[in-house]
Amino acid sequence: MKLFDMAGAPNPRRVRVFLAEKDIDIEKVQIDIMNGENLKSDYLAINPRGVLPTLQLDDGSIVDEASAICRYFEEVKPEPPLYGESAKSKAVIESWVRQIEGDAFTPTADVLRNTNPAFENRSIPGTNNTAQVPALAERGTDRVLAFYKRLDRHLAGSKYIASDSFSAADITAMCAIDFAEFVGIAVPSELTSLADWRARMALRPSAQA
Amino acid sequence: MKLFDMAGAPNPRRVRVFLAEKDIDIEKVQIDIMNGENLKSDYLAINPRGVLPTLQLDDGSIVDEASAICRYFEEVKPEPPLYGESAKSKAVIESWVRQIEGDAFTPTADVLRNTNPAFENRSIPGTNNTAQVPALAERGTDRVLAFYKRLDRHLAGSKYIASDSFSAADITAMCAIDFAEFVGIAVPSELTSLADWRARMALRPSAQA
Repeated sequence: MKLFDMAGAPNPRRVRVFLAEKDIDIEKVQIDIMNGENLKSDYLAINPRGVLPTLQLDDGSIVDEASAICRYFEEVKPEPPLYGESAKSKAVIESWVRQIEGDAFTPTADVLRNTNPAFENRSIPGTNNTAQVPALAERGTDRVLAFYKRLDRHLAGSKYIASDSFSAADITAMCAIDFAEFVGIAVPSELTSLADWRARMALRPSAQA
Repeated sequence: MKLFDMAGAPNPRRVRVFLAEKDIDIEKVQIDIMNGENLKSDYLAINPRGVLPTLQLDDGSIVDEASAICRYFEEVKPEPPLYGESAKSKAVIESWVRQIEGDAFTPTADVLRNTNPAFENRSIPGTNNTAQVPALAERGTDRVLAFYKRLDRHLAGSKYIASDSFSAADITAMCAIDFAEFVGIAVPSELTSLADWRARMALRPSAQA
């Protein structure tokens, strides 16, 4: 079993942090998205979609999409549970993961992929060959900041985002917010509950993954 | 417990089909997205995000995001399993659900929400108040058609999309493809494996949900 990964890339990091929280160590193969290694024939022979992260199982089959890879490991090693235990907590965690993806991850990727020359004709991950759309970059930052305000209000009453304990929602948000910071979208200083949560997350050893 | 729903809308339909497959009957409250009822104060008091579908639990709390609501019911009534049973099948189903959402659902919504006057300043679901971006509509159809080719090749060797049995991936694809047809994106006639799969899905009683 091996993970096709890119150190520094935000979606692969979701898997790396998840594995660190589960104390699972697997082989990782680095693929450089910035220089387009994910779109070259060697990698497309492994994953024709050209996306990362990709998990290759021992039977040779592959699973891509960060959330799908994480759910594989949630089953293989249930402790500690990161996708919830009760029906309600499982649903609430999934809902938050989706909101963080839609309202923070996606608009941040929109900013990066529709402005950075490295992503010319790659504004959507993988082999889509899509032109950059500057309007997406313009609205991306506003969307992220609007979500940060909402998340800050939510965190005023909660130690973790979606549950009484650390969950996949916290991982998704940590990776999304660090990604946004890399892209130039800072957390406004007045959002102190969000800043406090970030500081707590940064102390976890998995944050280094 | 009640489901805030809109008959005819594709994401609420994912939940309705899921409930039909599980043989679960719950109260449904209709909210009209087209005329903006989801953005009026009565509904925002229930779900401040202004999105559908929303599940309100008996304790008054809410869960939104179609996939999160479906996962709630997968836990409450595990049979028949629609998100898989083994670690691998759970991961593969989640991966396909994500691919169908990203490569069919999202670009179809891009076409509708960036062209239809009813969605002026609502190009993103909910309270975002975002202007339409015509370039998203232009590329949306191409993206959906590219995905259809890939899905057709995949279905040449598979009765169902992600598993040996019917799963949440089939529900997601059925709702996405019917939605695309409504928006004016037809399945090309040469994609016969995809057409055959669609015909099989349409025979399931849940398809009427």
